[in-house]
Amino acid sequence: MSDETVPDRGRESGGTAPSPGTRRPGGRTARTRAAVRDAVLAGLTEHGYPGLTVEYVAAHSGVHKTTLYRRWKDIEGLVADALDLAGEDSWVPPDTGSLEGDLRALAQEVVVSFTDPAVAASGSAMIAAAFQSERAADALRDYYTERFARCEALVERAVRRGELAADPDAAAEAGAAHCGIDAGALVRSVSAPLFFRLFITREPVDDTVAEQAVAATLAAAHAGAFTVAGRADASSGASS
Amino acid sequence: MSDETVPDRGRESGGTAPSPGTRRPGGRTARTRAAVRDAVLAGLTEHGYPGLTVEYVAAHSGVHKTTLYRRWKDIEGLVADALDLAGEDSWVPPDTGSLEGDLRALAQEVVVSFTDPAVAASGSAMIAAAFQSERAADALRDYYTERFARCEALVERAVRRGELAADPDAAAEAGAAHCGIDAGALVRSVSAPLFFRLFITREPVDDTVAEQAVAATLAAAHAGAFTVAGRADASSGASS
Repeated sequence: MSDETVPDRGRESGGTAPSPGTRRPGGRTARTRAAVRDAVLAGLTEHGYPGLTVEYVAAHSGVHKTTLYRRWKDIEGLVADALDLAGEDSWVPPDTGSLEGDLRALAQEVVVSFTDPAVAASGSAMIAAAFQSERAADALRDYYTERFARCEALVERAVRRGELAADPDAAAEAGAAHCGIDAGALVRSVSAPLFFRLFITREPVDDTVAEQAVAATLAAAHAGAFTVAGRADASSGASS
Repeated sequence: MSDETVPDRGRESGGTAPSPGTRRPGGRTARTRAAVRDAVLAGLTEHGYPGLTVEYVAAHSGVHKTTLYRRWKDIEGLVADALDLAGEDSWVPPDTGSLEGDLRALAQEVVVSFTDPAVAASGSAMIAAAFQSERAADALRDYYTERFARCEALVERAVRRGELAADPDAAAEAGAAHCGIDAGALVRSVSAPLFFRLFITREPVDDTVAEQAVAATLAAAHAGAFTVAGRADASSGASS
């Protein structure tokens, strides 16, 4: 998903959270910050974290080096803020009317983003930077924490619709917004096999792998593998 | 898992595949190769891929620079061969007597490796190098392909024991070694949520996350989510 994995370079931030250098959404400072973010992403994509310099960011953003040093301090600060800014967009998770449809749309966003070379390059560069900078890793963690927190809405809707319940036998009473389901784990479960292949085992992903991730997550969810208190039950055999 | 994620630095390779510089297992050339591998891993851990130099490898392996250039050509060749060598060990997947036990042991190997700073550092350095070197990425892909191919034995045993069948209704006939289960996807499914948290979302992993990965994979497997022809069925609701 382009937003989940990072940066839509062209999209202007809505500025939903106070951040260094942002005075008001859409203002000159916000535009400066977005230009700097774009230059950071371009530099990461072109040279990787080790090759990124403040000089490059200055040349590609049109923002003077002294301003960059004053506001962002160093390369780590620039990279971390680019990630913070990527997380301040208005992205909302898919709402297709069913848990299966929502999870499928999420999985397809990942596949589509990472088969688009431009999006893939900047997303991959951010993930790579986290290996080399503690602050980039912290910013990436915050980014995904926030992103997956938004995705939890999709699980809450499924519970409200009665598609999912912590205890399958209690499905009828599923009017409560929360049924003891680890929504964060459930939504991560769809992305995990895709990112694992992309960045760890270095295998291609496609619709078949996405579909398998959706099917596995749904089956696990229906069997209670993501219920907070029900993990032991699920492992003993969901088909029985 | 220490071997799945990389290198046990101290372990001598069994030399199961012909590789550059290996004349016979356990011989002088194999010892040289292992010393070079250790130096490469130490350098990656200490400086990362961008900071790794042939000079460093020479100084830390005791192998002359001209020898390194002649046999491995460059840094990419050194890193790729270190990964090839990591994959030539005699590691076999756990065999606990049950699919659940085997998957749990696999998941715990990942957690244990990545909470051991020494193993975590070199494994992480190899994964990081793949972001910066095409040849390292190819070597990592080969490493995991081979590693997960070994893990498929664990699924085949489960099928033979009748614990798992492509079609749950056909469990009784599960004498055949292969029942149309995508064993590779099944074993990857246990590792994926752990590596995803470690290297993408940068979240901690522990026994609880491992247990959840096992429960989700088992539930999905029992529901038929990993059967080659049964994906669509599994997504419609495994608890029914």
